[in-house]
Amino acid sequence: MSLLLARDLADALHAGRTTPRAVLEDVAQAIAARESQVRAFAALDLDRARAAADKAGLAALPLAGLPVGVKDIIDTRDLPTAYGSPLYAGHRPRNDAPVVAMTRRAGGLVVGKTVTTEFAFLKPSQTRNPRRLTHTPGGSSAGSAAAVAAGMLPVAIGTQTAGSVIRPAAFCGVTGYKPTFRLLPTLGMKTFSWHLDTMGLIAARVRDAAFAAAAITGRDLDIGDETAERPRIAIVRTARAAQASAQAHAALDTAARAAEAMGARVFDLDLLQELEAADAAHATIQDFEAALAFADEYEYDRDGLSPQLAAHLDAARLIAPETYDLARRTAKRARQKLGDLFAEVDALMTFAAPGAAPEGFATTGSPVFCRLWTLLGCPAIAVAGLQTSDGLPMGVQLVGRFGRDRQALAVANLVEHAISR
Amino acid sequence: MSLLLARDLADALHAGRTTPRAVLEDVAQAIAARESQVRAFAALDLDRARAAADKAGLAALPLAGLPVGVKDIIDTRDLPTAYGSPLYAGHRPRNDAPVVAMTRRAGGLVVGKTVTTEFAFLKPSQTRNPRRLTHTPGGSSAGSAAAVAAGMLPVAIGTQTAGSVIRPAAFCGVTGYKPTFRLLPTLGMKTFSWHLDTMGLIAARVRDAAFAAAAITGRDLDIGDETAERPRIAIVRTARAAQASAQAHAALDTAARAAEAMGARVFDLDLLQELEAADAAHATIQDFEAALAFADEYEYDRDGLSPQLAAHLDAARLIAPETYDLARRTAKRARQKLGDLFAEVDALMTFAAPGAAPEGFATTGSPVFCRLWTLLGCPAIAVAGLQTSDGLPMGVQLVGRFGRDRQALAVANLVEHAISR
Repeated sequence: MSLLLARDLADALHAGRTTPRAVLEDVAQAIAARESQVRAFAALDLDRARAAADKAGLAALPLAGLPVGVKDIIDTRDLPTAYGSPLYAGHRPRNDAPVVAMTRRAGGLVVGKTVTTEFAFLKPSQTRNPRRLTHTPGGSSAGSAAAVAAGMLPVAIGTQTAGSVIRPAAFCGVTGYKPTFRLLPTLGMKTFSWHLDTMGLIAARVRDAAFAAAAITGRDLDIGDETAERPRIAIVRTARAAQASAQAHAALDTAARAAEAMGARVFDLDLLQELEAADAAHATIQDFEAALAFADEYEYDRDGLSPQLAAHLDAARLIAPETYDLARRTAKRARQKLGDLFAEVDALMTFAAPGAAPEGFATTGSPVFCRLWTLLGCPAIAVAGLQTSDGLPMGVQLVGRFGRDRQALAVANLVEHAISR
Repeated sequence: MSLLLARDLADALHAGRTTPRAVLEDVAQAIAARESQVRAFAALDLDRARAAADKAGLAALPLAGLPVGVKDIIDTRDLPTAYGSPLYAGHRPRNDAPVVAMTRRAGGLVVGKTVTTEFAFLKPSQTRNPRRLTHTPGGSSAGSAAAVAAGMLPVAIGTQTAGSVIRPAAFCGVTGYKPTFRLLPTLGMKTFSWHLDTMGLIAARVRDAAFAAAAITGRDLDIGDETAERPRIAIVRTARAAQASAQAHAALDTAARAAEAMGARVFDLDLLQELEAADAAHATIQDFEAALAFADEYEYDRDGLSPQLAAHLDAARLIAPETYDLARRTAKRARQKLGDLFAEVDALMTFAAPGAAPEGFATTGSPVFCRLWTLLGCPAIAVAGLQTSDGLPMGVQLVGRFGRDRQALAVANLVEHAISR
């Protein structure tokens, strides 16, 4: 299964060496070959995409007609949007979410909706890990990561409220990019937590995700082969280091040494207590807001929620506003402290997950090494290229300064180049 | 037209001196008497409210069965929600917005949807000012303010992106309360600008709005007759003072002297340049986000937008991401500066609008004295009680510290008591 490289494909499209229709047919073939096993799509409409692919002028646009998958937690006007829940089976939103409108305006062809766990929460989905079909692809952006990893799509949109872009990307051996909070608008996705829900992208390599983000937003993020010059990279194992497997620690060591060999200045760093403590604020904020965000479904359709989510909301409703306010203040102070820290480092490097993708489908894995960075709103990138001794992908996570996505991507690019040499 | 006093009514309901049904029938009578002239409702369902009013146990809940109006920019599961736009005529959202779910859970009866301007923007609505039917009630929460001012409702929910709660409340001579940003969740309203849209409340007096906010959120905001003790009130006329009428300046003077007579320490204050300059950031943030929020309607239904909004979005689409980022940083710095300022003052007092409600219906008036406080996210309250020489209501605006809504309401309560003595 070779990955589809978004940036190279766009170059070829822009130069007229191929056409949107030809790329789409390659995608259709890959889907025909692999989807029955991987089950990455909640909805597909290749014929509609074919019609759009044949429109004049498409290849001149930034995304040049590249096929894009949209996580099924995000509204689309022409494809059903079920949010991974039977309550919304067949739901047809009136409007495209802004990120979908931006993608189409940039010349992306939305070929299908990718599988999400129920409301992007924890209940495992139907999707299989293309790198090993007996293993979870992670969650909640399971279909987005799996479709890219299976070579069925060059770009897919995902979302992360705790670790839902970084974790599946790492488990499937592709790049997950969670931009600075709200760099991609979250409007039109099914809200779980409005202070945490973050729109992200999954693509083959760092430069593919960066290219897609640049094309969709019109921002200066298309780094290509640019790598950060002698970046200061702090290795942060966090207070939760004991939850990471020996192989995850080894992967972090390998990535650190490789980056060093390419000129990075690498050192270990213990986070300030104020930053470590903020980790606990994540659940409070997420759950207090989820209890409100799902107030309607909880009141009128509780039986249509998974037992896991219903029980979670039972507890979430008991969080007092004062407890929530305190968590928000904790997060705000931690954001300031993290800003201070970035005066002295260019990026943090940490685990993407406690280990490689767990075997089986009882769990989608843990967001324990992601949620703090979601809470703090800073850019994070799952960098692929390493693997465990038995051949499963093992990601590492680069974390950058709030609003400095280009710098974060350039450091991630260096690490990616370093570990794939 | 006597106003319906939410807090007193709730007291009577809690004590069993009246019943939800009896209050609802009073509301129904007031609507029958005045709605044909005021035109505050976009949808009404009194029979559904009657059925809900008769449910056992309602009067024991915080809102005790009080009738509530919901601005028609906010989703309701049992009433059509048209967002003030012909594009959404007859639109039936699947879910209650969280603020509606919270209101119902607290024992509020949603009797109808109140008129909003098109997408809560500037195009004038059908609604008339109950205090003078030849004048605008303001916008965009026109129906919410007018319904309360006409004695048709004790509480109505509104929204503000620039000045859409404070302005109509002031024009109609009632209380408008824009809480700290996201104290009331904005999920389930039609988004115009996600960093600015703010949910607010309109009620007769300050203590009525405070009571309703406490009941809906479960927060400690029910101030009753509590007034701030010897508060430090800074009179802030802003760099835009010349846009305020002589009568607006006189109202501010009157309110200042009255507050002083009740023990407030009142002084004039020129805002720091960094705060004044942030005012210009509002339009950039609002419009950049609106261009994305309405990307779908703009692309597929442009002819269904008002020419005013369509032209506005034409221009909004040209704002560069870098310009937007700069405006966001300006706002962030201004928030910090305003926080510093509140070490030395308890509240700011400023204009609610440049003057009283304009005659006619060509405009809903100007948000020029509101938008900075929306941008900075701090609580703001339009305090009623003053009037112009020809008898039109003239509000003043109290602005408090971010997150300290109780304190802001207590200062507003003092000012209200002072000017109505």
